[in-house]
Amino acid sequence: MNKQKNLNEIKPGEEIILFLVVDKIELKTTKGGNPYLNLELRDKTGSISAKLWERAEETYSQIMPNSIVKIAGKMEEFNGNPQIKIEKIRPAVESDGISFEFFLAKSNRKLEEMINELNSFIESVKNPFLNKLLVTVFSGKTLEKFQTAPAGKGWHHAYIHGLLEHTIEIAKICELMCTFHKELNRDLLISGALLHDLGKIEELTYQTFFDYTDKGKLLGHIVIAALEVQQAIDRINDFPEELKEQILHLILSHQGKLEFASPVEPRTLEAITLYQADELSAKTNAYKLAIAAEKNKDVSWTKYLPLAETSLFIPKNNQS
Amino acid sequence: MNKQKNLNEIKPGEEIILFLVVDKIELKTTKGGNPYLNLELRDKTGSISAKLWERAEETYSQIMPNSIVKIAGKMEEFNGNPQIKIEKIRPAVESDGISFEFFLAKSNRKLEEMINELNSFIESVKNPFLNKLLVTVFSGKTLEKFQTAPAGKGWHHAYIHGLLEHTIEIAKICELMCTFHKELNRDLLISGALLHDLGKIEELTYQTFFDYTDKGKLLGHIVIAALEVQQAIDRINDFPEELKEQILHLILSHQGKLEFASPVEPRTLEAITLYQADELSAKTNAYKLAIAAEKNKDVSWTKYLPLAETSLFIPKNNQS
Amino acid sequence: MNKQKNLNEIKPGEEIILFLVVDKIELKTTKGGNPYLNLELRDKTGSISAKLWERAEETYSQIMPNSIVKIAGKMEEFNGNPQIKIEKIRPAVESDGISFEFFLAKSNRKLEEMINELNSFIESVKNPFLNKLLVTVFSGKTLEKFQTAPAGKGWHHAYIHGLLEHTIEIAKICELMCTFHKELNRDLLISGALLHDLGKIEELTYQTFFDYTDKGKLLGHIVIAALEVQQAIDRINDFPEELKEQILHLILSHQGKLEFASPVEPRTLEAITLYQADELSAKTNAYKLAIAAEKNKDVSWTKYLPLAETSLFIPKNNQS
Amino acid sequence: MNKQKNLNEIKPGEEIILFLVVDKIELKTTKGGNPYLNLELRDKTGSISAKLWERAEETYSQIMPNSIVKIAGKMEEFNGNPQIKIEKIRPAVESDGISFEFFLAKSNRKLEEMINELNSFIESVKNPFLNKLLVTVFSGKTLEKFQTAPAGKGWHHAYIHGLLEHTIEIAKICELMCTFHKELNRDLLISGALLHDLGKIEELTYQTFFDYTDKGKLLGHIVIAALEVQQAIDRINDFPEELKEQILHLILSHQGKLEFASPVEPRTLEAITLYQADELSAKTNAYKLAIAAEKNKDVSWTKYLPLAETSLFIPKNNQS
Amino acid sequence: MNKQKNLNEIKPGEEIILFLVVDKIELKTTKGGNPYLNLELRDKTGSISAKLWERAEETYSQIMPNSIVKIAGKMEEFNGNPQIKIEKIRPAVESDGISFEFFLAKSNRKLEEMINELNSFIESVKNPFLNKLLVTVFSGKTLEKFQTAPAGKGWHHAYIHGLLEHTIEIAKICELMCTFHKELNRDLLISGALLHDLGKIEELTYQTFFDYTDKGKLLGHIVIAALEVQQAIDRINDFPEELKEQILHLILSHQGKLEFASPVEPRTLEAITLYQADELSAKTNAYKLAIAAEKNKDVSWTKYLPLAETSLFIPKNNQS
Amino acid sequence: MNKQKNLNEIKPGEEIILFLVVDKIELKTTKGGNPYLNLELRDKTGSISAKLWERAEETYSQIMPNSIVKIAGKMEEFNGNPQIKIEKIRPAVESDGISFEFFLAKSNRKLEEMINELNSFIESVKNPFLNKLLVTVFSGKTLEKFQTAPAGKGWHHAYIHGLLEHTIEIAKICELMCTFHKELNRDLLISGALLHDLGKIEELTYQTFFDYTDKGKLLGHIVIAALEVQQAIDRINDFPEELKEQILHLILSHQGKLEFASPVEPRTLEAITLYQADELSAKTNAYKLAIAAEKNKDVSWTKYLPLAETSLFIPKNNQS
Repeated sequence: MNKQKNLNEIKPGEEIILFLVVDKIELKTTKGGNPYLNLELRDKTGSISAKLWERAEETYSQIMPNSIVKIAGKMEEFNGNPQIKIEKIRPAVESDGISFEFFLAKSNRKLEEMINELNSFIESVKNPFLNKLLVTVFSGKTLEKFQTAPAGKGWHHAYIHGLLEHTIEIAKICELMCTFHKELNRDLLISGALLHDLGKIEELTYQTFFDYTDKGKLLGHIVIAALEVQQAIDRINDFPEELKEQILHLILSHQGKLEFASPVEPRTLEAITLYQADELSAKTNAYKLAIAAEKNKDVSWTKYLPLAETSLFIPKNNQS
Repeated sequence: MNKQKNLNEIKPGEEIILFLVVDKIELKTTKGGNPYLNLELRDKTGSISAKLWERAEETYSQIMPNSIVKIAGKMEEFNGNPQIKIEKIRPAVESDGISFEFFLAKSNRKLEEMINELNSFIESVKNPFLNKLLVTVFSGKTLEKFQTAPAGKGWHHAYIHGLLEHTIEIAKICELMCTFHKELNRDLLISGALLHDLGKIEELTYQTFFDYTDKGKLLGHIVIAALEVQQAIDRINDFPEELKEQILHLILSHQGKLEFASPVEPRTLEAITLYQADELSAKTNAYKLAIAAEKNKDVSWTKYLPLAETSLFIPKNNQS
Repeated sequence: MNKQKNLNEIKPGEEIILFLVVDKIELKTTKGGNPYLNLELRDKTGSISAKLWERAEETYSQIMPNSIVKIAGKMEEFNGNPQIKIEKIRPAVESDGISFEFFLAKSNRKLEEMINELNSFIESVKNPFLNKLLVTVFSGKTLEKFQTAPAGKGWHHAYIHGLLEHTIEIAKICELMCTFHKELNRDLLISGALLHDLGKIEELTYQTFFDYTDKGKLLGHIVIAALEVQQAIDRINDFPEELKEQILHLILSHQGKLEFASPVEPRTLEAITLYQADELSAKTNAYKLAIAAEKNKDVSWTKYLPLAETSLFIPKNNQS
Repeated sequence: MNKQKNLNEIKPGEEIILFLVVDKIELKTTKGGNPYLNLELRDKTGSISAKLWERAEETYSQIMPNSIVKIAGKMEEFNGNPQIKIEKIRPAVESDGISFEFFLAKSNRKLEEMINELNSFIESVKNPFLNKLLVTVFSGKTLEKFQTAPAGKGWHHAYIHGLLEHTIEIAKICELMCTFHKELNRDLLISGALLHDLGKIEELTYQTFFDYTDKGKLLGHIVIAALEVQQAIDRINDFPEELKEQILHLILSHQGKLEFASPVEPRTLEAITLYQADELSAKTNAYKLAIAAEKNKDVSWTKYLPLAETSLFIPKNNQS
Repeated sequence: MNKQKNLNEIKPGEEIILFLVVDKIELKTTKGGNPYLNLELRDKTGSISAKLWERAEETYSQIMPNSIVKIAGKMEEFNGNPQIKIEKIRPAVESDGISFEFFLAKSNRKLEEMINELNSFIESVKNPFLNKLLVTVFSGKTLEKFQTAPAGKGWHHAYIHGLLEHTIEIAKICELMCTFHKELNRDLLISGALLHDLGKIEELTYQTFFDYTDKGKLLGHIVIAALEVQQAIDRINDFPEELKEQILHLILSHQGKLEFASPVEPRTLEAITLYQADELSAKTNAYKLAIAAEKNKDVSWTKYLPLAETSLFIPKNNQS
Repeated sequence: MNKQKNLNEIKPGEEIILFLVVDKIELKTTKGGNPYLNLELRDKTGSISAKLWERAEETYSQIMPNSIVKIAGKMEEFNGNPQIKIEKIRPAVESDGISFEFFLAKSNRKLEEMINELNSFIESVKNPFLNKLLVTVFSGKTLEKFQTAPAGKGWHHAYIHGLLEHTIEIAKICELMCTFHKELNRDLLISGALLHDLGKIEELTYQTFFDYTDKGKLLGHIVIAALEVQQAIDRINDFPEELKEQILHLILSHQGKLEFASPVEPRTLEAITLYQADELSAKTNAYKLAIAAEKNKDVSWTKYLPLAETSLFIPKNNQS
């Protein structure tokens, strides 16, 4: 597939030919008795509503929700909101060479660069047991998932490679903290930073859209990570018991408070540093995304954000 | 050692010869300049203060805190509180045939009877994977600890065999709930009831007194149990993934609320039943112990109980 | 009236003749200017939307909300949701022999069986004052209401006879707890179990649908029960003052926490047991109902439940 | 008994002869082996420690805690705190003409004046049912207790006649609110103001000291008042049901929040006014007492007050 | 403009000619393809929906949201809700002599009377520094805004002159409290009462509708007031430092709790009185408005009020 | 004064001559009737109890609490705790050349280095208004205090120069965050980082010991800083209003939550970053200090820390 325009760049009046994902499809009837289709379509920059006024019933039987379609039509505007009038629509086929991955938001950072930074951090851990643990965990299928997964469903780093980007940010913040405090056990802290969110690769599904898995909802990413790290440690000879307890403690306590789903609260110096570094990375990214989502709307406040329990100011003199 | 009188049965004026545990020992000096020893001693029914007025410095160097001693002396009373005046004191020796176990509170129920009930519950689980899991876990060293451990440091079932007693109570309550609701997966629920507090055998130390271990404070008994159950499941062929997630969910959610240290809240029918059955067993036992502790004091209210956030009424017409 | 099919058993395409309750009726106009009726109808298995395209204005003036109607029509489906196309509709008349009771959800347990169990519990209370109190309260109009009322508006045991079913469950759980703890005052505890939710017969209205009464919202079922029990006790000679305070305390504290609307928290052994037994019975029933409500929807999670603060897992291998 | 000096007016070095209440009495021994008595004594202005060095054992057997004694001795000072050195001590006898009442803090307002104000408010209520209710309740034994009782154990209006003083303050505030809002049902609001704390006459004991009764701890003053008002209403013919529910609602909701032990929150205009008027009267009085208690200590902040969750500033330029 | 009928007084079927404010205007299309306008219009008594079926597109380009229009049309009713069918509509022009002020809710009290009361309170403050402060602040532009502003966006005293009305109520309540407690520093308390909500004149915008300003959302009215009062104090010679801190403390602590956005909690006697007086005035007014808003709806309960966390009872026998 | 040994380096048995601060001094009497002095003395490494057995009354009249004394004596040990037996004691005199500063804990970082870093950050701010603001604020008396003050009374950076050290840490963390997010307004964020805790120079007193001032308790450091920054801005021509609101918002919101005393919560991207950077710096430092305080005690857990709501693990393999 050739590169196509993003939905948020298309102006009213433009003729369009686009691949899009079908989030919702409904068969409706006008009061005059004519059937029509109401659809929700999206690309990685957002979603939009669309109407098909012809051949509605026939088309309804051919298009599945959560599938990719190719459409031709025209961008219209109505009461200030963009809307697509579909002329033609068909399911994507294999020869289109298009996959769901194309429609998922992605990190702005280069993957290769981030992988290099991850590897540098792993190499920098000199404690042989922790180094072995990191090398064991970050390999094969797990590494592949870790490089791809988002760090959340929709709040912070909620895009492909987001987990990797978030992990590296935290490791860098922890590195800086070690320059302030020689008392921090750097190898332990960096290892905890790299491993703490590992469970997200099984807590989340991110093939066609971002959501929680059954396992994620029944166990939570914190315990999933602890279970995986235990299995890796069980394969390393003579891994010291106290070190095992400390690295598991970093994973278990990294959400900082019982009410945030950590089964224990931070009780080591490294644990409090990791928790606060995680908060700093997550909150800043989340607020940035929330502001960016409304940048082009000519408003000076975002909509109310339940997780922030407020709306955010969008300064006029903003630099970006 | 022959059976000796309990501390709470000895009256002022009695001459005594007793084995006791030293909780505290302090060398002090009277204003007149004479050294003396101030001790805190206990048996399984409570603790008491004691004084040694002779050979204080010499004795101080011979007696260790957290050791067993043999004393001869006299029970006195001062301002309404009993106190021992020690005449002779020496460390217990091997030939005394006395161990710390003797000084720990114990369940009132017969151990053999409780073991039989545990076995009956295990046998009653017909799902082959769950049955295998229970048989695997409740064996060898683990079974031994499980039969001995208390269920807590000082709130509910805080006595030797308390974990077993508490576990059986919950299983019986769950059994009754199954008679109300055929929708409950009985095998899953009973298995969860038997396994949910397994982590307490490593969270607590109960050889000489009851306290939390480092591991207990860093990981918590909920995650310790999940880690142990995962290791047991890893040794069972073809254990179904969904069943594994459900049994782990029962363990993880059994404290019912995030703020009570469960990393996930109950999200299955069995999980909510187990949580509420656990609460019923624990709270009733805890309140009973708190009232019993002040039964002989001629008061109609217990002291303030931080965990209950109240004091409790001791009815005059109480039946027991 | 002969037995009719339940709404949740009727398939699209079936011709139907049914008595149903009108929850809502709206006169609307198509864009073409034709008036039509939009109705919400229900039987005891759920509610459904319905349309009447003919004689809308005339019919609108004849059909009242919260009335019973007889309809003839056809079950249709649109966008996956069932909907009734009404051909004929008329108000139910006395000769139809149909009452609102027919449309309210009912307990699955047999009423007679439950009444027998209630009577057995009353008889088993040997304390003469408590026995007299129970016999006095559970008689006449009060008994009649007690046997009919639901235990709640929509969360747990929210069906006709639900209050009786819930009360008996709690009494059985309390009975089991007495086998664990001889310290429990059985007569007091069973009496408290039977009386604690008595106020619900005046807190709720359950003739045509389930809702709170003005009295229920101004006083709450806890205080209503306390006021009624006081009036009954005032008619019993020499009822001991301390016993009165204890039985009132059981009623007042049975929601366990101030923030759950108990004006005092449990401060006796019986009170904590009753509170926890109530929780166990209520929560298990509520979660069961919530899961059952979505059993046929081919989903593995229920919708979000505000009172549980989560959605619930619906296991594929569920037994029922 | 003639008027005696208050404890907080006596200076170190003064010889004293006083009647005081014994809060605590302990027999202790000096390191030199001599027995002595350590006492806590109080009058209505505060408490003080005292020592008796002679005839300690003999005296110990004659003096009971919670009794009145007559002492002769000398006020001393040690490390900045006053302390009494007792020369002579004996139990008070009937001919001393002294009662516990003498040692309890009292309202600064004149009782007669307050009774007049109470009567004026009762007379001003023109609704015949509410007027009858007030006249019924405020009579005989109940009126006597109501005029004597404190409004609390130790926080606000915690002195004899405090309940009456507090009640009148609230009624006056409510009266003022009625001048702002004609929508307020004045008769209902004033009746609620007068009755809302009625339960305190049975919740508290205030004969020899201020404390909660068993009944107070098991039922709470809110429900006690509701039960009493129901009994009074039951004796009035044709008392309107809705009016009964509204006056009970005022009593039940007057603490404003479930977590402050109100079983329902304010749901009428009068209820919210009464709750806020109660808060205003109670908090202002409580803070005033807390500041007054440390006025003479040459500090600019009171000690930490748990109920206020802060310490309070004592301004230098304070007018009083 | 001559006086026109209020929206809430017009009956279905009446022909109308009205000036109204446009809250919302949407261009829509019927299923038959005809464009029409859907509007939300309001006067000071409430808002109503309206339809324009002719010349929709042309009109849509002429009418702006948040503007004043003159309409001619007819009041209709549909499904119980009133709705305007617009025949003619045009923007208001200068010669209409109509401004937004006309459409904002206003206090029922006479402005002149309230200004007199404000001045009396200012004059009554005898402390020269506080008097100077009040005279300085309540002058010019600030005084003008203070007399006009509402006290809130939509909860209490949310109407023009509401801030002044609320301020005077509080001052009167504080005055009454001074008659109970001579310990209150009256000049300080009255000054705090008059100044505490001063920041609302910049926190809110109230020219065309009531909303928060950017400054209001970034700083909050509490800090805005503190900043303004500091600037006024900086212009007064020799204003005593302790007095400055106390008056600022009254402003900062007047919301009573940190979680209500006060950066310090009340720590002086005057501060606790002011906070509670503010609560009393605000809550009573808010509940009154919420009940009044549903007085004519023939319901006995208001809708759920998020800020009260309940719905409110509307008594049948209500006096107003 | 020459450098003297630190209290925590002196061993039992050593003869000592030391300058120390008197935290407490009490005149007591032995049971034998001999007066003696009990003192609490401290240097910057901790406090210790001391006894003077000779000339107690005479000395008591010469030594004031919160003064510096010179003592000669001997370090003793009793029951494991060190204690000084004083032989000679006298008040420090001017010629001793000793001041309170000597006894206050100090930052481990070099002051000059930190001042250089502060200046670099100020210079790096290119926005002319913000640069002017920083230069204005960080000068003269204010700069002097800012370089000296601790950042807290006893939790984090609670030592001389701690405010400066803490400020620089935060600025460095913010600098790192800017490398992740180009959307951050660096000049605004760095300015906010440098100014946010400015109010602590007046909230705390740190001449002889660390405590809150009256002003600190009445206004809080957040509002004190806002008031000071407003005064500085008022002296800068044409300071943009929106920029003023944003910089004040950073100061006001930097504690992140209303319940932590911020009158507004973070509502800009810079505000959330600053809050989280502050948390990271403060918590890590606080936990480090708490662990360090018990490093030499041969325990593996610190005592319970109220502000952390837990005790902390002290790993055996700790690197420092």
